[in-house]
Amino acid sequence: MILKISGSRLIKSLAASALFVSLLFGAVLPASAMQIQKVVSKKGIEAWLVEDHSRPILSLQFAFKGGSTQDPDGKSGVATFVSGMLDEGAGDLDSSGFQKRLEELAAKMSFSANYDNFSGSFQTLTQNREDAVKLLRAAINDPHFDADDANRIREQLLANLRLEEKDPDKVSSIEWYKLAFGAHPYGRSSNGTVESIESLTPDDLKAYRKRIFARDNLKVAVVGDIDAKQLGDVLDTVFGDLPEKADLKLVPEVTLANVAKQRVVAMPNPQSVVQFGFQGLKRKDPDFIPAFILNYVVGGGGFSSKLMQEVREKRGLAYGVYTYLYPLQHAGIFAGGVATENKSVGQSLDLIRAELERVSKEGLTETELRQAKDYLIGSYALRFDTSGKIAAQLLAIQLDDLGADYIDRRNGEIEAVTVADVKRVAKRLLEPKNLIVTVVGEPEGVKEVGL
Amino acid sequence: MILKISGSRLIKSLAASALFVSLLFGAVLPASAMQIQKVVSKKGIEAWLVEDHSRPILSLQFAFKGGSTQDPDGKSGVATFVSGMLDEGAGDLDSSGFQKRLEELAAKMSFSANYDNFSGSFQTLTQNREDAVKLLRAAINDPHFDADDANRIREQLLANLRLEEKDPDKVSSIEWYKLAFGAHPYGRSSNGTVESIESLTPDDLKAYRKRIFARDNLKVAVVGDIDAKQLGDVLDTVFGDLPEKADLKLVPEVTLANVAKQRVVAMPNPQSVVQFGFQGLKRKDPDFIPAFILNYVVGGGGFSSKLMQEVREKRGLAYGVYTYLYPLQHAGIFAGGVATENKSVGQSLDLIRAELERVSKEGLTETELRQAKDYLIGSYALRFDTSGKIAAQLLAIQLDDLGADYIDRRNGEIEAVTVADVKRVAKRLLEPKNLIVTVVGEPEGVKEVGL
Repeated sequence: MILKISGSRLIKSLAASALFVSLLFGAVLPASAMQIQKVVSKKGIEAWLVEDHSRPILSLQFAFKGGSTQDPDGKSGVATFVSGMLDEGAGDLDSSGFQKRLEELAAKMSFSANYDNFSGSFQTLTQNREDAVKLLRAAINDPHFDADDANRIREQLLANLRLEEKDPDKVSSIEWYKLAFGAHPYGRSSNGTVESIESLTPDDLKAYRKRIFARDNLKVAVVGDIDAKQLGDVLDTVFGDLPEKADLKLVPEVTLANVAKQRVVAMPNPQSVVQFGFQGLKRKDPDFIPAFILNYVVGGGGFSSKLMQEVREKRGLAYGVYTYLYPLQHAGIFAGGVATENKSVGQSLDLIRAELERVSKEGLTETELRQAKDYLIGSYALRFDTSGKIAAQLLAIQLDDLGADYIDRRNGEIEAVTVADVKRVAKRLLEPKNLIVTVVGEPEGVKEVGL
Repeated sequence: MILKISGSRLIKSLAASALFVSLLFGAVLPASAMQIQKVVSKKGIEAWLVEDHSRPILSLQFAFKGGSTQDPDGKSGVATFVSGMLDEGAGDLDSSGFQKRLEELAAKMSFSANYDNFSGSFQTLTQNREDAVKLLRAAINDPHFDADDANRIREQLLANLRLEEKDPDKVSSIEWYKLAFGAHPYGRSSNGTVESIESLTPDDLKAYRKRIFARDNLKVAVVGDIDAKQLGDVLDTVFGDLPEKADLKLVPEVTLANVAKQRVVAMPNPQSVVQFGFQGLKRKDPDFIPAFILNYVVGGGGFSSKLMQEVREKRGLAYGVYTYLYPLQHAGIFAGGVATENKSVGQSLDLIRAELERVSKEGLTETELRQAKDYLIGSYALRFDTSGKIAAQLLAIQLDDLGADYIDRRNGEIEAVTVADVKRVAKRLLEPKNLIVTVVGEPEGVKEVGL
């Protein structure tokens, strides 16, 4: 049973989300029957296309490189704010008119921003494609950013931030990135702060769109009922009139300091929520695939993982514990989390450090490696079970610059990893003495370190 | 932008969910390319199957008729409690062992109960099908219901109920069903109450399973990588050893009292959340399709709907207002909701009553009918855009007893509806003077009526 209850960490919701995170952030992808076409429009916009004419539906996903790391100093949250405003009046339609037209066409569009990318997702029926594409064109090229609409969305963003402040999981995560990355853009939340969101103006939103929405930082993935020629026209309509080059500010590459840090944030709660992490790998690091397997066995594999066995199964200290690899564009993170009673935080962290230390020295056994490979190879197909998921995978592969043959290569790369590879990578990565830790709750006997 | 924030009703989340509800509860479904096979196993279990060998994945959905209406008196929430316990230890595996095995196999199963049905959803990779099916067999035929596991799940259910008590949407909905249905089983929440959940024992759970899990009240829908013969074996493994007949207690057919009732539940909140409704139609009523179109135009069509125009667009009184048809097995409901500032509740309800009254007298115009048909016919394909959604549709059609040709018939039935049909049905259904209303918040000048 998976019950997702906001604000309280429940046994399987934690384990399940951990598994999800590791699969997701692995950003690696069997589906050999799929034919990926590279389509280039007349105006030079490129997209990856998988034709599927079994249903009269088209899914298009795209991303502009440059997410919230491109928020100007003092204006954190701009990218997220823009993502909420593109369908709030655009072209010749005001906010209500735009929403009404979308509904009439049964079309869907949504936008979001994470650290590295500003992303969009679009779906239309074939019969309404032309009209729906016009709406998408308007949202991207001619959003109004009217002050009244901006104020309404601002209130929603502020309400969301105020909820985050009371959510120990969110607080723990936000504080962890602050502690780990300091003044680097990864140290700021993509959602901004109450102060920044209150201060942002429509001109700030317009300026972000103008800098980031361009053709040289755009990736597009399309799955569904369309052929290459038709898609070329869609690409030119939606993206063809954007400026050629984005105006991206330089984001420095960053390595996490190899020293222990521990911050405690007091929040009345019978449980403490702990986030921990240390330097990980970027996606194109040659050790990424062995590290991906390592993470699965250590803490990414839910109930089967080593940390779950040690902390939960053997000692009943926590409902769940998980780890994940998070490869960002300018940094790599190996991170995890655990939620325990306030009195068990110290003991749980000691156990986690000891287990990471053990794996760092010993690596994995042949059996552990075999089981992990079987799972990771076998479950790869689950990332391709809907058109939307296929499009998301095609987009992620482009953003990670892994090549269109990656889907065919990926399981072979996993199969090729040896016990020696994993041992080497475990030694390189696992640095349990230098964990960066945030604890939110009323933990007993847990001190701040290195602040 | 759709921001779903718990506890506060936001503009588009409301409109979007209204649209969703109307599509969902319409329970009507073009996808003529789909070949539905009726498979009957050796032991006589029937399932509807759509073969899809493009991916090595199988989706199976099933339902036993008899959901929370079958909870014994004083034991409301039993069905929901059982739905949380089937994967908490079954066959020769304890709770952790079962979860671990599911994860190893990358298989998914989940269970839920609504008023009329106890439902399950299952997904497996082809390569793990045999092992995953064994787990599903164990969950359904041999769940342990151990006391320790039951207490853990009980705590989750109680935490969920305590959150519901603070959520004006949930409170308004629960109170509406109480007010509308009184002592009838539809007057109780499927989630039970704090008192009932605290009192339930493993024996209560076992008794429910024994009464409800049987072959004569079972419907099964399957989509994916399996043929009819293989599916026959799966059906016998999972369901073949269940008792032939369920032991269902009689649930009376119920018609809503045709008198106005209004209840106010005080909750500190700048907004009031209002639920309203009156007698609707069961799914097999010959007027259901005209009523379905009527609902779309009145309040089911999001920003385009008449109520949205009157309440939001013309007067700015609410962020959103919506209606939906909810055809239950033993009752039919035409219901809706609106969230407004506390001072605007009365005026909003007056406007809603006036608009329903107007439509009840005048019906719809040719243009309104044409636009609604175009949308409802055109968007039907969106209910079939993933294997899981196809399986869900096949199951719903079986539960509603509409026949396997329904998918091919449905758009024709919508096209055939005339202005005269809609006018007749509007007159029959829309009874704005006799609304049953619950208001949760601090509404100004709104009185209780008919209690």
